[in-house]
Amino acid sequence: MNKPEPTAISPTRAVDYAEWYQEVVRAAELAETSPVRGCMVIRPWGYAIWENIRARLDERFKATGHVNAYFPLLIPLSFLQQEAEHVEGFAKECAVVTHHRLEVGPDGRLVPAAPLEEPLVVRPTSETIIGAMFAKWVESWRDLPIKINQWANVVRWELRTRLFLRTAEFLWQEGHTAHETREEAWAETLTILDLYREFAESVLAMPVLTGEKTPNERFPGAEHTFCIEAMMQDRKALQAGTSHFLGQKFARASEIMFTARDRTRQYAWTTSWGVSTRLIGGLVMTHGDDNGMVVPPRVAPAHVAILPIVRRDDDRATVLPWCERLAAELREQRYDGRPVEVIVDTRDDNAGERGWAWIKRGIPIRAEVGPRDIAKDSVFVGRRDRAPRDRASVPRAEFVATIATTLDDIQRGLLERARAFRDAHTRPIDGWDEFRAFFTPANPEKPELHGGFALAHWCGSPNCERAINEELTVTIRCLPTGYGQGAPGLCIKCGSASRDRVVFAKAY
Amino acid sequence: MNKPEPTAISPTRAVDYAEWYQEVVRAAELAETSPVRGCMVIRPWGYAIWENIRARLDERFKATGHVNAYFPLLIPLSFLQQEAEHVEGFAKECAVVTHHRLEVGPDGRLVPAAPLEEPLVVRPTSETIIGAMFAKWVESWRDLPIKINQWANVVRWELRTRLFLRTAEFLWQEGHTAHETREEAWAETLTILDLYREFAESVLAMPVLTGEKTPNERFPGAEHTFCIEAMMQDRKALQAGTSHFLGQKFARASEIMFTARDRTRQYAWTTSWGVSTRLIGGLVMTHGDDNGMVVPPRVAPAHVAILPIVRRDDDRATVLPWCERLAAELREQRYDGRPVEVIVDTRDDNAGERGWAWIKRGIPIRAEVGPRDIAKDSVFVGRRDRAPRDRASVPRAEFVATIATTLDDIQRGLLERARAFRDAHTRPIDGWDEFRAFFTPANPEKPELHGGFALAHWCGSPNCERAINEELTVTIRCLPTGYGQGAPGLCIKCGSASRDRVVFAKAY
Repeated sequence: MNKPEPTAISPTRAVDYAEWYQEVVRAAELAETSPVRGCMVIRPWGYAIWENIRARLDERFKATGHVNAYFPLLIPLSFLQQEAEHVEGFAKECAVVTHHRLEVGPDGRLVPAAPLEEPLVVRPTSETIIGAMFAKWVESWRDLPIKINQWANVVRWELRTRLFLRTAEFLWQEGHTAHETREEAWAETLTILDLYREFAESVLAMPVLTGEKTPNERFPGAEHTFCIEAMMQDRKALQAGTSHFLGQKFARASEIMFTARDRTRQYAWTTSWGVSTRLIGGLVMTHGDDNGMVVPPRVAPAHVAILPIVRRDDDRATVLPWCERLAAELREQRYDGRPVEVIVDTRDDNAGERGWAWIKRGIPIRAEVGPRDIAKDSVFVGRRDRAPRDRASVPRAEFVATIATTLDDIQRGLLERARAFRDAHTRPIDGWDEFRAFFTPANPEKPELHGGFALAHWCGSPNCERAINEELTVTIRCLPTGYGQGAPGLCIKCGSASRDRVVFAKAY
Repeated sequence: MNKPEPTAISPTRAVDYAEWYQEVVRAAELAETSPVRGCMVIRPWGYAIWENIRARLDERFKATGHVNAYFPLLIPLSFLQQEAEHVEGFAKECAVVTHHRLEVGPDGRLVPAAPLEEPLVVRPTSETIIGAMFAKWVESWRDLPIKINQWANVVRWELRTRLFLRTAEFLWQEGHTAHETREEAWAETLTILDLYREFAESVLAMPVLTGEKTPNERFPGAEHTFCIEAMMQDRKALQAGTSHFLGQKFARASEIMFTARDRTRQYAWTTSWGVSTRLIGGLVMTHGDDNGMVVPPRVAPAHVAILPIVRRDDDRATVLPWCERLAAELREQRYDGRPVEVIVDTRDDNAGERGWAWIKRGIPIRAEVGPRDIAKDSVFVGRRDRAPRDRASVPRAEFVATIATTLDDIQRGLLERARAFRDAHTRPIDGWDEFRAFFTPANPEKPELHGGFALAHWCGSPNCERAINEELTVTIRCLPTGYGQGAPGLCIKCGSASRDRVVFAKAY
């Protein structure tokens, strides 16, 4: 048997998946922990991925009639309290501002001074403050719909944090809309759900299931919560985005009322929806491998790293200008409607190390250029979706001319691979023993990767939902879109009648 | 004498400038006050201007080798305390987070629970937290320079707030760089100052003076603070951006040390610099008039508002498709490297009201289209830099073909007008009586607009600076770039020797 190739990331996914994740985030220079408990620093490579996520989402929001605005970071406690379920959902994890000055205390250290009359929370989400503004802006049905999105930071005081997946502060977008009718708000909720699905699949190359959350997993205060759920490589589910139908509950809390066409006074129907920097964690765990990050071309901060190989000083005058010309030619090509982004990495002389640095960061294409390549008018090309040593000499003109189709091929391949992985670990399960075995590692001492998405029947009872979670830490990820159109069956837990299968998985 | 035309904004600038400002911000739907003390809501039209400011600055930062990243919102008190002048400058206006949970109190109202071990401040600026990360990232001179920018929200607990100009929370960018040598950090500070100047003039059409602040007006902890200063239409100065040379002071506080080329351990040299949503207030007060906002084309969320005139229902089927075709033709044109942005405003039937709404919002060009215009294949065009009634019929093909040059003409005209205004209200002053008269309204009961930029001699003493400020509320805006190359003279206040003139003004 051949010895396996050494990997750039240690431990590998199979050995310790959680540690592999942290190591990829570090090695790819995506983010790191900060001296502030639970808060991360998003490093330039990670932030540039977020900028691309933001730009691609933003153009989709605008194309569907939404506009951006900005609302206050700090929210009075009385606002939060307006909706009972909402406050219960968020009160346990709020950063509370109580003072507006610092003074030097007797021991020479700073202490808070000047207490506020009413404390403020750092927004965990903005339904209440945005609702208060909607109430001011809406008078008549002619003022509706209002379709607003905000790009912002939010704070939820999580006790156990993990870079990107769960941090005290994170970046996100939150859409907030108000409508004249229930039907229109319902349509908005589902339009956004489908927008998220299309975005996840076509931009992030991340296949997702869509569906509705059980009442137990709803957003606090929502009437219905819809979600997109992706499968990570440890076969756990990642909730990657949510779209909430809020009915008239928040409109009542914030008094968003309007004079209807029939001259009666009515409460508006509202929605809210969001995705966050968590998506970057999802990218790592969907596409990353034992050599590091793999960034889908459509969100990659750069598409090609050109690595000049300069072994002797007098090569420099030939190789560097040749690489710059190659970069210029590539930048004239367009991929996904924008110029191809190219980095010429002239940092130092060790081409091997530089190559591995770009592999770890997950750039789609590496192009090594040394004197021998130049002599052949060729480039030595590696693709991040292939093994590090699987490189080939490609004539320069061909490399340039095919760059967009190569990137397309990588993008499509990543989606196909992720979809095949998910499908391979998704299956209908009808017996409790099989269900338990599916979600239980064979060796509890040293648990291997196991589980996946189990499509199983559920009677609809929160008791069964809770019992399954307590026994196996498995949750219902969603009642998938189309729920109710399948065959009825018997609840996997209690054997009562079930209308259709739901999706069970362990989850982040 | 003709009766003056009625204006859309009341009061006018001449009657009550401060109230005129608030009214323009409201009428243009740029922003409004929120229920949270001192915090504003930036409405879609205002936020879209900010998005354009951000995009145009961001491309300039990237072109000069900077990358974006994101650092925590919350900063431990101990970090703030590392630099003595810095903490003194910000301690009086910090929002302090002291708890991380809420509970329902005995009276049923929420109260803070779970005190933090160490309180955190909501960042008023990020030198200290970013410095801590730089200290981790820098080991050798090879790791330098680091040139990072952050787009973020910050909180400074101002007691007297004013939309955009001074708010408790505002949006900004903050650049933070670390360098190997003093010279390199110095060059960075001035590169950014010039970038800000060029941006203000060519994008915002806002002429600015550049110069250095006096020690008294420096950023807390900086060795040198440079600024761009614009003149508003009430002839007061607006500090529109600052670039700080921090020397090694923050590097010492945060221990940003590196092994130098000579193997010694050295402190890095750092800079920081920023502009904020205050610029939008600057735009209002530079270009706005008694009919509302005037947005320079290069930051306008949309360039053309097409206003279909539909007086009879059967016009609709002709007029609306014609307007949509016109919009499509315009969108194929490019201005400033991007497609021309067009809004077809089909909201209701009163074309007059819609026209005034767009005048108040400051869109560069209005194009009315009714059946008679269509019969002539023409458009009835109004430019925001001309009087509302100064409109003309323009053949459709000509209107489309010349749209970019028209926008260019408006952009250039706004800059010229603002520069002429500033120059008309800038003058050398050598005698104290003249200086005092320049800054004193003739009628203190009902003060008219007065003052401007006085170029006067100053001996360099903080006492004279303070005395002038106490008597006239006039500050030294800057020692203008080129200071020291003029003729020496005598201090306007004390008559002692002065090297050169400085810029005095009342200021926001």
